[in-house]
Amino acid sequence: MIQKINEDLAIFRDDNYPFLGGGNKARKMMALHEKLKSENYNAIVTTGGIQSNHCRVTALYCHKYNIECTLVLHGDKDKFLTESGNAKIIRNTPTKIIFSEIDQISSNMDKAIDNYKSQEKKPFYLYGGGHTFEGGKAYIDVIQELIEYDYIPDYIFIASGTGSTHAGLLAGIAKFKFKTKVVGISVGRSKNNAEKVVSKFAKELSENYKISNGIGKTEVDDSFLCGGYGFYNDDIKKLSGNSLIDYNIFLDTTYTGKAFYGMKKYIENNAIKGKILFWYTGGIYNYLAK
Amino acid sequence: MIQKINEDLAIFRDDNYPFLGGGNKARKMMALHEKLKSENYNAIVTTGGIQSNHCRVTALYCHKYNIECTLVLHGDKDKFLTESGNAKIIRNTPTKIIFSEIDQISSNMDKAIDNYKSQEKKPFYLYGGGHTFEGGKAYIDVIQELIEYDYIPDYIFIASGTGSTHAGLLAGIAKFKFKTKVVGISVGRSKNNAEKVVSKFAKELSENYKISNGIGKTEVDDSFLCGGYGFYNDDIKKLSGNSLIDYNIFLDTTYTGKAFYGMKKYIENNAIKGKILFWYTGGIYNYLAK
Repeated sequence: MIQKINEDLAIFRDDNYPFLGGGNKARKMMALHEKLKSENYNAIVTTGGIQSNHCRVTALYCHKYNIECTLVLHGDKDKFLTESGNAKIIRNTPTKIIFSEIDQISSNMDKAIDNYKSQEKKPFYLYGGGHTFEGGKAYIDVIQELIEYDYIPDYIFIASGTGSTHAGLLAGIAKFKFKTKVVGISVGRSKNNAEKVVSKFAKELSENYKISNGIGKTEVDDSFLCGGYGFYNDDIKKLSGNSLIDYNIFLDTTYTGKAFYGMKKYIENNAIKGKILFWYTGGIYNYLAK
Repeated sequence: MIQKINEDLAIFRDDNYPFLGGGNKARKMMALHEKLKSENYNAIVTTGGIQSNHCRVTALYCHKYNIECTLVLHGDKDKFLTESGNAKIIRNTPTKIIFSEIDQISSNMDKAIDNYKSQEKKPFYLYGGGHTFEGGKAYIDVIQELIEYDYIPDYIFIASGTGSTHAGLLAGIAKFKFKTKVVGISVGRSKNNAEKVVSKFAKELSENYKISNGIGKTEVDDSFLCGGYGFYNDDIKKLSGNSLIDYNIFLDTTYTGKAFYGMKKYIENNAIKGKILFWYTGGIYNYLAK
């Protein structure tokens, strides 16, 4: 749903997506369902941090559809075993957990895949963050909802992480021939790197799903990194603390809070006018984790 | 929104109400806004347990509208100071907290009211659970949403606690002349007591808001108490553990899980056919509290 905050600003409540606990990762996971089912996959291997939304939805998906699941997790094992939030939900599924150093993730995922194959299973290798064509397609399709809600924004602002949500929106906007500009606020990557990744995936999506209209400009702003992934400033902390009363959403300091702060600054700095849509991908599980 | 689970069963996702963190308590609190504003109240005193959804929405409401707030809480102070969920959200507001023994709640609320009056404030005395005419009215009005979603159920099942949500729905169904039966599954009270309270408030709402059609039968089933408030059986525990994958919601063992279990048994025992709507009032904050 779209929630209007004032005349100029509205929020796309992707947190209220009603499956697998909601959020953009859940929407992407459900978009994979047809492929996994029709191609008879019976196991998934993926990776993320101990409070990963993507890992939560993968664990829930596998439990729901009776598919085996291995999560290669990085982060503190004791925290994973005691914290609430996504970690608690993952613990309550029959998922197999392998803790891994960052530089061993890829080899640990390969081992888990080989292990399933040796058991005559058909495992699906799911990139961290849930980066797939089908997941990108979900964000082409979601543009249809903007039409249903009769809210075609001039600008969409979104936290730019792995980039596939951003790329999907770009492809969707091309498909529906909107003039909407999408601005990604980087939560960690440099502008150049992020724009390259998003732009490449948007083009691949466009080719794969036969979208004839050209993809709009890929724009990522990395002016609000505050030093890098996970870092934030006092303004972001304050924004996060008041977000539930000011905007009805849980803005965290790593993703959505940084993006919202970046959006406000971007609007100021560029004297933007028009209908703004902040794409809220979720945050309650991280807020309530500790 | 209404989420269909299968041909016969749908869930009203009151958890996705988009203000104050969602749920039926948030809907009731926002329904009080006009009265509080127009009558110039500048403080609220209310009560609940340390993980009360009602106290969470009251604290957030007061913070949002810059009104002073005193919560008279019962329960373990150390847990309140360390747990996540509603307790964490309340801690992050400037709310004044008074811990109280159960039998001292009323006198502590009176003292807090007197205290505000002595400061020349105008405090609003809000009953625990948020029981007000305006809150009941919110559930008369919500019936309009069933029309918008084109889903007029034969039965609505709801957790029956303080009873004002149940009473509001009864009055709303009378107003719109639906034939929908509402069945409250008691989470603690006896059938007789609960039916008396709900029926009385439904009639008061009906008179207050000039609904000319008669209120339907008030029905509360107390067959699933499992010994009383807070108790549950193994089936409820299992239902709760699998609720996110089976029904996309967090069913807790005290309220919504007990109600959902009772609904399933009631349907079986009475061989009910027709469109069923489970009214999901929320549960994520309690699920993620620890």
